[in-house]
Amino acid sequence: MEPVNIIGVGMTRFGVLEESIVEIAQAAAYEALEDAALIESTIDHLFVGTQNPEEFTGQGHLSTLLADYLGVVPAGATRVETGPSSGSSAFESAIALVGAGMADLVLVVGVEKMSQVARDTASKILSRMLSLENEIMYGATPTALAAMITRRYMHDYGLTREELSLIPVKAHRNGAKNPLAHFQKEISVEQVSNSPIIADPLRLYDCCATSDGAAAAVVASSKAVHEYGFSDSAIKVLGVGHGSDYLAVQHRSSLTSMNATRVAAKNAFSMARIKPSDIDVCELHDAFSILELLNMEDIGLVEKGQAIKAVKEGTTEVSGDIPVNPSGGLKARGHPTGGTGVAQIRDIVLQLRGTAPIGLQVDNPKIGLTHNIGGFGNNMVVSILSTI
Amino acid sequence: MEPVNIIGVGMTRFGVLEESIVEIAQAAAYEALEDAALIESTIDHLFVGTQNPEEFTGQGHLSTLLADYLGVVPAGATRVETGPSSGSSAFESAIALVGAGMADLVLVVGVEKMSQVARDTASKILSRMLSLENEIMYGATPTALAAMITRRYMHDYGLTREELSLIPVKAHRNGAKNPLAHFQKEISVEQVSNSPIIADPLRLYDCCATSDGAAAAVVASSKAVHEYGFSDSAIKVLGVGHGSDYLAVQHRSSLTSMNATRVAAKNAFSMARIKPSDIDVCELHDAFSILELLNMEDIGLVEKGQAIKAVKEGTTEVSGDIPVNPSGGLKARGHPTGGTGVAQIRDIVLQLRGTAPIGLQVDNPKIGLTHNIGGFGNNMVVSILSTI
Repeated sequence: MEPVNIIGVGMTRFGVLEESIVEIAQAAAYEALEDAALIESTIDHLFVGTQNPEEFTGQGHLSTLLADYLGVVPAGATRVETGPSSGSSAFESAIALVGAGMADLVLVVGVEKMSQVARDTASKILSRMLSLENEIMYGATPTALAAMITRRYMHDYGLTREELSLIPVKAHRNGAKNPLAHFQKEISVEQVSNSPIIADPLRLYDCCATSDGAAAAVVASSKAVHEYGFSDSAIKVLGVGHGSDYLAVQHRSSLTSMNATRVAAKNAFSMARIKPSDIDVCELHDAFSILELLNMEDIGLVEKGQAIKAVKEGTTEVSGDIPVNPSGGLKARGHPTGGTGVAQIRDIVLQLRGTAPIGLQVDNPKIGLTHNIGGFGNNMVVSILSTI
Repeated sequence: MEPVNIIGVGMTRFGVLEESIVEIAQAAAYEALEDAALIESTIDHLFVGTQNPEEFTGQGHLSTLLADYLGVVPAGATRVETGPSSGSSAFESAIALVGAGMADLVLVVGVEKMSQVARDTASKILSRMLSLENEIMYGATPTALAAMITRRYMHDYGLTREELSLIPVKAHRNGAKNPLAHFQKEISVEQVSNSPIIADPLRLYDCCATSDGAAAAVVASSKAVHEYGFSDSAIKVLGVGHGSDYLAVQHRSSLTSMNATRVAAKNAFSMARIKPSDIDVCELHDAFSILELLNMEDIGLVEKGQAIKAVKEGTTEVSGDIPVNPSGGLKARGHPTGGTGVAQIRDIVLQLRGTAPIGLQVDNPKIGLTHNIGGFGNNMVVSILSTI
């Protein structure tokens, strides 16, 4: 496999944005191209990661449309969709194309605009990720399933409500320092624990919101890196892994461990030839508070049942040994579904370059990891990036 | 790049099918796996090419869902969408993943079920591929644009209505021998030329119908080919190219030549290190009669303006020097949009194996080509396969 690098990243603010989905995608893409000091016509292929633009905005055919509107014609243009991990899957496809030697410069854009529909419509669109016959027909929603998982984890590992609240508190503490985050205000454990119940035991602040936003990355072959003079500043792609699981949660082997994450992480670590303890910083898919704990354990960053101990001891803080979601994560940075995976890549690239926002820069990280969930607990993508 | 092979193919009948989109995808996938003598659990990654399943059937998240329903969990699972070339783009992504050495066995499924919505609803869904501000707002449809192109081609190259009718006549002559084709009956030049006008000068029989159907292929590394004993019968992937063009037809450089096809073909030939005259059999995207002529010329199979001469002389017949669409093409085999690209691959694999249906087998072909259109005249994918 040819070496694969990242030479440019860009991102819009996440939140409720006035611009159209095309304009949001353009803003992130142009920033990434400018960051890479490239013009559009150098791009060999465009990958667009987006989950449900037709339903959320009425605008489909984004690969063809954005090839034109981003100025990359006649480059090949492909939309990739794996639910909320669409951005990471688009990144994975870009890695494969460059890794196979089929392209030298690939632009990856992850985008979603979710605020054009009413919030309950958005929830309905997102709920379609679940199993119709096993979950949707019984009124299950992603939040309800996350609540069930939380309850079981509390039972099995003694997690308390106040401990769980530490997760969104940390997310908001980081998000408050991230100028592109959807929510830039700190919250307290009391605020989380006393916020309205959404699905018992989950409270309002345990659940990420829906957001608008886009992120972009320029993926390059080593030939292109040398040609364009990026030899010193390019970030290396060490590995990527992708795993699925049974659609219905009830068909899976565990409620408190997600096998798709374990498979994706195992494959990514195997490709990167490193181990979990080598990770200096990571962005994990914390759509619900409980998921940050499951993800840390399933990736192997901590032992099973030990994630909350790490959180309580400050290990997952920006200044800790295993900084998790210095960006604020899905909870505070926001979660425009197709945009999230590429935003995670962008945030880890900034960390590895040492250019994260003030107060969010981890101390001299060399290797970073991203983890993105597709459906509810399946279709996971794990990527590993490095300065080395 | 690692060598890439095809070791199994499958396809449902195309037409109006009673089964659900999931059942159609399953039927094609299981046939491909059986053809490759593999069980589901050997698959490393699933790519699903499908255009608008949410709008056509109400069923989305097909990558995650099919990973479960096809039995490939915990393999990675990705949906790829580029409009009607979604199947070819899924195939391209599979080539990249195997070519990069990131997977050994990849299952590609192309599927669409279009008959669940009324025909005018289907047309509306398909028309959204066009430019809103430059085309849709003025009432343009794919058929209207094809009519405009036909008129211009007639003006520039002297094509007559009766000559144009030879294209669907050949398509139906071949389709009549294809047991999986949507339309298995022959038609005459008179029937075409006198069929109802859809968009002058295009008649009913110049336009492909909407279909239900799926096709599948198993893409394999050479390591897997040897491991599973397919060394003698595997089909080689020589090249793939992908090109885009400006969304609105009025922004393009020509009405009678599609630059996205030219770019895709050039890239595919360059990767395959062969020239157009090396092609022994091809499946081209003849959604409208005129497109078969444009495609032949843009791919370089004939000189500009000479395609109809080749048709009249029988060159594009099954027994001719450049057999085009022995399957019946989109016109007669049918066009379940996301399914078409993989069906083309499947049909060329059968040709190269020498196992095409009776009366459709080209004489000992060594190299075959597929060409699939994404939007209206953009997002093209060209693939080149070989026995050698």
